[in-house]
Amino acid sequence: MLIVKKFGGSSVANKERIFNVAKRCIEDWQNGNDVVVVLSAMGDTTDELLAKATDINPKATKREMDMLLTTGEQVSVSLMAMAMQSMGVPAISLNAFQISMQSTSKYGNARFKRIDTERITHELENRKIVIVTGFQGINKYEDYTTLGRGGSDTTAVALAAVLHADVCEIFTDVDGVYTADPRVVKNAKKLEVVTYDEMLEFATLGARVLHNRSVEMAKKYGVTLIVRSSLNNEEGTIVKEAVKKMEKMLITGVAGDKNAARISAIGVKDEPGIAFSLFHTLAKNNINVEIILQSVGRNGRKDISFTVSQDDLQATIELLEDKKEVLTIQEVEYDENVAKISIVGAGMMSNPGVASRMFEALYNSRVNIKMISTSEIRITVLIDEKDVDRALNAVHEEFNLGE
Amino acid sequence: MLIVKKFGGSSVANKERIFNVAKRCIEDWQNGNDVVVVLSAMGDTTDELLAKATDINPKATKREMDMLLTTGEQVSVSLMAMAMQSMGVPAISLNAFQISMQSTSKYGNARFKRIDTERITHELENRKIVIVTGFQGINKYEDYTTLGRGGSDTTAVALAAVLHADVCEIFTDVDGVYTADPRVVKNAKKLEVVTYDEMLEFATLGARVLHNRSVEMAKKYGVTLIVRSSLNNEEGTIVKEAVKKMEKMLITGVAGDKNAARISAIGVKDEPGIAFSLFHTLAKNNINVEIILQSVGRNGRKDISFTVSQDDLQATIELLEDKKEVLTIQEVEYDENVAKISIVGAGMMSNPGVASRMFEALYNSRVNIKMISTSEIRITVLIDEKDVDRALNAVHEEFNLGE
Repeated sequence: MLIVKKFGGSSVANKERIFNVAKRCIEDWQNGNDVVVVLSAMGDTTDELLAKATDINPKATKREMDMLLTTGEQVSVSLMAMAMQSMGVPAISLNAFQISMQSTSKYGNARFKRIDTERITHELENRKIVIVTGFQGINKYEDYTTLGRGGSDTTAVALAAVLHADVCEIFTDVDGVYTADPRVVKNAKKLEVVTYDEMLEFATLGARVLHNRSVEMAKKYGVTLIVRSSLNNEEGTIVKEAVKKMEKMLITGVAGDKNAARISAIGVKDEPGIAFSLFHTLAKNNINVEIILQSVGRNGRKDISFTVSQDDLQATIELLEDKKEVLTIQEVEYDENVAKISIVGAGMMSNPGVASRMFEALYNSRVNIKMISTSEIRITVLIDEKDVDRALNAVHEEFNLGE
Repeated sequence: MLIVKKFGGSSVANKERIFNVAKRCIEDWQNGNDVVVVLSAMGDTTDELLAKATDINPKATKREMDMLLTTGEQVSVSLMAMAMQSMGVPAISLNAFQISMQSTSKYGNARFKRIDTERITHELENRKIVIVTGFQGINKYEDYTTLGRGGSDTTAVALAAVLHADVCEIFTDVDGVYTADPRVVKNAKKLEVVTYDEMLEFATLGARVLHNRSVEMAKKYGVTLIVRSSLNNEEGTIVKEAVKKMEKMLITGVAGDKNAARISAIGVKDEPGIAFSLFHTLAKNNINVEIILQSVGRNGRKDISFTVSQDDLQATIELLEDKKEVLTIQEVEYDENVAKISIVGAGMMSNPGVASRMFEALYNSRVNIKMISTSEIRITVLIDEKDVDRALNAVHEEFNLGE
């Protein structure tokens, strides 16, 4: 079996943890598997490098920033190879140049275009454990690029795809994907398996176990993911394509996200093109809009409400105030004390009654629903932030997710 | 003019020094020159990386060690590019992969084989200051190698050679090459110019301003070197091929080296091949022998004395004791309290009286000569360590080097 294993920065933050990771990888290798390990930079290394750069030039080009930051993973992988060698196991570290991990040109946020497998395959054939720098690529100018958020996960999935790995294990600080946040819902249950689409919905919600890009890539290339803990030997959660058995599960889980804010543009002219202009303006400024609610027009005016993440709230308000006239807005209102609650489940598609069951459960728990948004396999409602824990438990209970 | 400038680790050890180096480079660039800068790792970075590696695996492979250590220079060059950018100057950092600095395969002590100039030339044509990682190469396996001692100097000279640079400036913590160590000989004078051969002789002596490998390479490719201080704007010393005017200088300088020890193999059989076996054994164990003195045979026995650096003394003694029988040695003696004094000068070749003048000056200062060794442009004598300062001053005076 060919296994790709990815460990984040905290998993290799010191000598003890490096050896802990080395042992886990060696176990698989000793059982006859081929093992490729993808690592992030150790602990706070990336932050330390960023601080050095900012001290010298707060406006450094991203090209030089990537040249600097990519050293972090190179340190991790060489030290890991040394650790494995000290345990008598042949291991070799490789960086983006050595594997030719070709990416788009965009420094700081590149995407993979093509990965050569020749070198890795050669080393695996020699029964070496291959340790690869996550998070980095090489663009057409032969410059280092970095992949942005979730970059090391993406590296692992991309390698699993081109190497046709049997499985790609993503090690995190949680045991896997749960039916709800176990800190909030006492009887939350770890899921044995979820579909790519469900995982994508979870990732856009509060439960950021995996970054969307890596899940999308896994889905595209059919890479079976396993999310599991680097701290214990629990089985973790498998992420893969939907199969018959899985479809019986109506709801996979429920997630809450307090990082939400509602904004309302009051008294907008009820004319074609106004709503488009508004959302176009936001998109141009990289502001991601989530739930949208538009009131029915009255006296030639209407209200447009939508949610953004709290990080974007200030920028959104400033932008709307700034364009008030051209967007015909009479007033900008906002509410920070809101949160999203979502249920996700591939089984939802063929069961139209799910939404009303969710709404009724919330009603019975005196949770007021402010806005609603749905996808094929997700229903999201906006509620008061103070109601989140009660709402999560009510919905979890309603769909018997703890059983 | 195309100028290659090399700065060592202490010259880029912190933000202030990085900006100091940046300014010096930018001055040349603003004067219309093309500028290539070669940097070592910042301050103690290499030592810190070595410590991390040793902590994890004291016997790590050199291949992984080089993978680890090469990150040090990459950090230096990217931060330097950022510093220059903050001063409004276009700068770009490049590592051994990006320039394709092809080396032999020997990890930890590689030599350059071929360097592609395409990328550097392209960046220079765009009027960028190009900042290159010193000390590192890429071997035929596409692995990082490091060049061993004096590696960054070698990188600078190699780049100057392939780029046909007009000059290669090596910045150190001294002003240049002196007629003698200014801390010992009060009226020691900075030399304006020395030949490659003189510099090579100086380098093998105490005055390790430049590593031999870089001087040899400069000589081979006719690269004009300038040794100068990173702390001030003094002119420095030019190192180049001998020209007529220079030949008039009888003696260029005098150097002392206290890192010497004498070893004597007493009562060795006076038979062909014994001396060869002895020195062959030492060479095989990487022990570098300097001055050799062999006594005239008597009663079928003779004594062989030679000097090694003090670092090799213990290993040499153990080796000779170990092979006492096969080498027919009756006794091994040694003396640590010795030092070498050398005079160097290209003019020596055509002036046979130089040696006797040196010996007489030492005799007049009551300095006892224990052993003598000469090359075409160097005379070295072994003396008691306690006499070094007196001897240096006497010889410096005899040849009027302070004038």
